[in-house]
Amino acid sequence: MERPGGRTARVRASVLRAAGDVLAEQGLASLDLGDLARRAEVGRTTVYRRWGTVTAVLTDLLLEMVVESVPRADTGSLDGDLRANARLVVKTLTDRRQGPLFRAIIAAATSDEVTAAALTRFYAARIREWAPCVTDAEARGEVPRGTDAEEVIRAVSAPLYYRFITGTGELDDSVADRAAAAAIAAARAGVWSSSAE
Amino acid sequence: MERPGGRTARVRASVLRAAGDVLAEQGLASLDLGDLARRAEVGRTTVYRRWGTVTAVLTDLLLEMVVESVPRADTGSLDGDLRANARLVVKTLTDRRQGPLFRAIIAAATSDEVTAAALTRFYAARIREWAPCVTDAEARGEVPRGTDAEEVIRAVSAPLYYRFITGTGELDDSVADRAAAAAIAAARAGVWSSSAE
Repeated sequence: MERPGGRTARVRASVLRAAGDVLAEQGLASLDLGDLARRAEVGRTTVYRRWGTVTAVLTDLLLEMVVESVPRADTGSLDGDLRANARLVVKTLTDRRQGPLFRAIIAAATSDEVTAAALTRFYAARIREWAPCVTDAEARGEVPRGTDAEEVIRAVSAPLYYRFITGTGELDDSVADRAAAAAIAAARAGVWSSSAE
Repeated sequence: MERPGGRTARVRASVLRAAGDVLAEQGLASLDLGDLARRAEVGRTTVYRRWGTVTAVLTDLLLEMVVESVPRADTGSLDGDLRANARLVVKTLTDRRQGPLFRAIIAAATSDEVTAAALTRFYAARIREWAPCVTDAEARGEVPRGTDAEEVIRAVSAPLYYRFITGTGELDDSVADRAAAAAIAAARAGVWSSSAE
């Protein structure tokens, strides 16, 4: 057994940081286990034994991104919570390191099923983390009963990712706020509720 | 001058079809000009002289996709038009050839600025094609005056592309219909209008 923060944990942190750096700076095509070992100052054998493939590193990186990601907001109103969510997504996608990193992982997922499955788990975890903002709002009477909380959270991120992928339009806080407002308007109109009030 | 349907047009059609096939079947990494020439049964010199790079082929393919793409619906109601739009997007993204083709082009755009710019032009053209559905609806009083038509069209596609990219949730006609309904609810609530009624 190894305690947290031990050598294995430090090796993992170094390799995942190096992988994130390479993806953000040069993209997926440059990701190579030998190069990662050199950058992370870790033995090649260790990297090959522990991960073995670039896909395994990507999957582990996405797991780490879930663990490290920001918890849901709890501002007391759905508007406050979803604006916080939308602004966090914009901040991530426009970040100098995180933006290119997400682009590279999304690209990797298009050509590899294992990475695609890990990417789906990442987003599913993020959606589950933020869904209680909607169920709390339902309890406060802010949206109809039976509103599909995960659909609302997806609806907040969707226009931001659409701009990120297609390049059609800026990504800033005012776009984030409108994404939140649009999701709330649709939720209130009962688009995602099984039983409209 | 060459008439439409002449040899140059046939060469272009063959090469672009071959490029689409390779992207859909094997992805971007397999796209190679010599291989395209062979598949298209066109001389290598012709392909190298006419396009010169894989990026140039991708850009030309996206231009062709704009030209060949389906015109806007005109059903007489915003709901009818936007459902038609959403269902067309779902049909495209779930198509056995088009789905992988879009994935490959989106991936290519993450690592190449010229392809990214061509992809943005493709989506901008599609959004402009469908935007009159919203301005017509505004004229009929279905949405507030000053509604940003392009924002509404983007909002219809966004949740469908979000599912396509993240793998969180199915893509079918009921999801398409809810995407249209959500965009309309937000538009009616004035989220994208400069002057709420």
